[in-house]
Amino acid sequence: MSEIRFLAQACCDAVPAMAGLDTDTKAALLRDMAAALEARSADVLAANAQDMAQAAAKGVQGAMLDRLRLDEARVAAIANALREVAELPDPVGQVTRRETRPNGLAVERVRIPLGVVAMIYEARPNVTADAAALCLKAGNAVILRGGSEAIHSNTAIAAALHDALRAHGLPTAAVTLMEDLRREAMVELLQLTDLVDLAIPRGGEGLIRFVAEHARVPVIKHYKGVCHLYVDRAADLDLALDLLVDGKTSRPGVCNALETLLVHRDVAVDFLQRAALTLRERGVELRGDARTCELVPDAKPAIEDDYAAEFLDLILAVRTVDSLDEAIAHIRRYGSDHTEVIATRNEAAAQHFVQAMRSAVVMVNASSRFSDGGELGLGAEIGISTTRLHAYGPMGAEALTIERFVVRGEGQVRHAQSRVR
Amino acid sequence: MSEIRFLAQACCDAVPAMAGLDTDTKAALLRDMAAALEARSADVLAANAQDMAQAAAKGVQGAMLDRLRLDEARVAAIANALREVAELPDPVGQVTRRETRPNGLAVERVRIPLGVVAMIYEARPNVTADAAALCLKAGNAVILRGGSEAIHSNTAIAAALHDALRAHGLPTAAVTLMEDLRREAMVELLQLTDLVDLAIPRGGEGLIRFVAEHARVPVIKHYKGVCHLYVDRAADLDLALDLLVDGKTSRPGVCNALETLLVHRDVAVDFLQRAALTLRERGVELRGDARTCELVPDAKPAIEDDYAAEFLDLILAVRTVDSLDEAIAHIRRYGSDHTEVIATRNEAAAQHFVQAMRSAVVMVNASSRFSDGGELGLGAEIGISTTRLHAYGPMGAEALTIERFVVRGEGQVRHAQSRVR
Repeated sequence: MSEIRFLAQACCDAVPAMAGLDTDTKAALLRDMAAALEARSADVLAANAQDMAQAAAKGVQGAMLDRLRLDEARVAAIANALREVAELPDPVGQVTRRETRPNGLAVERVRIPLGVVAMIYEARPNVTADAAALCLKAGNAVILRGGSEAIHSNTAIAAALHDALRAHGLPTAAVTLMEDLRREAMVELLQLTDLVDLAIPRGGEGLIRFVAEHARVPVIKHYKGVCHLYVDRAADLDLALDLLVDGKTSRPGVCNALETLLVHRDVAVDFLQRAALTLRERGVELRGDARTCELVPDAKPAIEDDYAAEFLDLILAVRTVDSLDEAIAHIRRYGSDHTEVIATRNEAAAQHFVQAMRSAVVMVNASSRFSDGGELGLGAEIGISTTRLHAYGPMGAEALTIERFVVRGEGQVRHAQSRVR
Repeated sequence: MSEIRFLAQACCDAVPAMAGLDTDTKAALLRDMAAALEARSADVLAANAQDMAQAAAKGVQGAMLDRLRLDEARVAAIANALREVAELPDPVGQVTRRETRPNGLAVERVRIPLGVVAMIYEARPNVTADAAALCLKAGNAVILRGGSEAIHSNTAIAAALHDALRAHGLPTAAVTLMEDLRREAMVELLQLTDLVDLAIPRGGEGLIRFVAEHARVPVIKHYKGVCHLYVDRAADLDLALDLLVDGKTSRPGVCNALETLLVHRDVAVDFLQRAALTLRERGVELRGDARTCELVPDAKPAIEDDYAAEFLDLILAVRTVDSLDEAIAHIRRYGSDHTEVIATRNEAAAQHFVQAMRSAVVMVNASSRFSDGGELGLGAEIGISTTRLHAYGPMGAEALTIERFVVRGEGQVRHAQSRVR
């Protein structure tokens, strides 16, 4: 048995113990993990200092380095996130449907854990704790494969989580951190279809494509968020401007930031000139089609690639459209199925837009920045899916479960001739 | 563009038209498909005669040949199945959850179609109509790849479905029948991750493994059904005997038939001797462990492979166990995650069994033969999933949809500083 299969087998063997935990025990375990993390804070910070030194020696700088960095406040934030997950409702055991069939069979749909979840991620060490917590909340075991740049931090955090597992008499393999970070090892893990139920990659598009291409186990992912705001002819333009500024500037580096603005021609003169002024003050570069560039002299001409781009920066692609349907056609062509927004006071236009969109999240008169598990009421988020299967949009603990059938009878048989009595 | 990509692209282009159909139009379309099939009955039977002649010439016989055969009654049954799907509830547009967030955002989860479903199947021509109907019911487009042995029948059935699509002004590509039956063409289809949302293979284990191994698109499948009946020490033995006879003999060739009987030692003497007598009358061969063979002299000794086998025949593997937990361990080791049954009057034992099983369907005091979409209230079934993702157990029209988020606001922004007004 290879080392990777051995690890995955141990994690799989931990599934029944984790799946069988009751709600209170899981909550206590997660709170104890938070406490263990705080108790090991000095170890975690020392490990993180090693990672930081290594990264600095490799020339990593700026935002990349900041994502890797831990300090006491960030460790406390990770511990608090564990405590928040502890308080969330437990999806396991929820009865989602209940029906009595004409023959008296009581048929229920009941949530059970998925089993073994493999998280593949980069840089941010907090994912080690966050992902483990949500997986455990849903009664799963988890294999964590973080990036080499954070290996010391991740190992120290996992050690704290293991302290709590041990204190509860649970197998530490329920939270398995892969230390072999070779790509071949990851590929081997992603092909263990008999042991791993789901892989969730989180990170840059390159990592996600690598996972999708090499996995034989199911993968839930999103590559990018090319989110659109369509300002309808019937939009409240003040409201639309708020959505635009929030969507583009409140945190441009995240997947639910706006990347493209579509404006109906009837309101283009008014809206684009006001928007240009406001966005210019906030340092946003506009890249527009010909009509937009006429109205906004300092906009640069957009090339086609701009409409498919996830800029993750203070850049906005803009297009003036002749109709709602032209906006819909644009989003169908260039969109990433993540989040789309319409600003309109016309209910029929809103309904038509919602119905025509196939994206995971569709907003009417609200900022794309709300496309987030916490904001949409899931409590916490393990990722966002644009895979049109199982979970679509922000994924919380419930997305780490599956509904199965539990049927209770009194000796019903399907063929009367089978009856011996 | 290759021919396969061209077909799949046309099917994908049909998605918005199908997804936008209202409930009444979809029902009318399905009823018109039934009528068109009846109108083309003579063509379908002539085409089937070609398939039958070809199969006979190849030496196909018995059950295989019977599965391929159509006659007027079977065509009428296919048409009636279309009418039944027409009457089922429409899953599209169903609001599954609704919540107002503290900031006033109204968050709904709403079912939308998956998109393009690829059905890969063998022999039975009725799957062409059944699968198309369920896919369309859920607003999807479908690519059908049947077996070469049924190609004439499938083509004639698809022609009838196309008549109805045309009569409704809908693209016939919404039901695309692949005529290129080379394995390479199937593999190409299964790798079109940008066009195909889900593949569902139905047929023998060989076909399903081939699909699972070559697909890059998500696959929902089950390989086999090794269903267990555990007769607890607290079982009503008369009731347990009914479940055993129904599970093993009412239709041994299907996936929800029983394959293994586990009996608690405390009731083994009574139960096994009665069971052996009854099953012997019905022509069932028993393969047992040493204790079973002692109690049932004409049982053959079981080898380990018998416990993992899906016999699909009048053969039953039997084992005497010392405890409920030994039964659970046996099923965890040899089971296929399909359907497991416990016969017991002890509620604690039933609960422990249900909780310990990870299978898609768990029955208490009911026959495994009820593990079927129609019997469990789904109306119709496109397949049974033992893939622990998206759908688990029998899959109906709802399993061909996905829940997405629809959010309505009044200009809410995530960061107050974004507000321009």
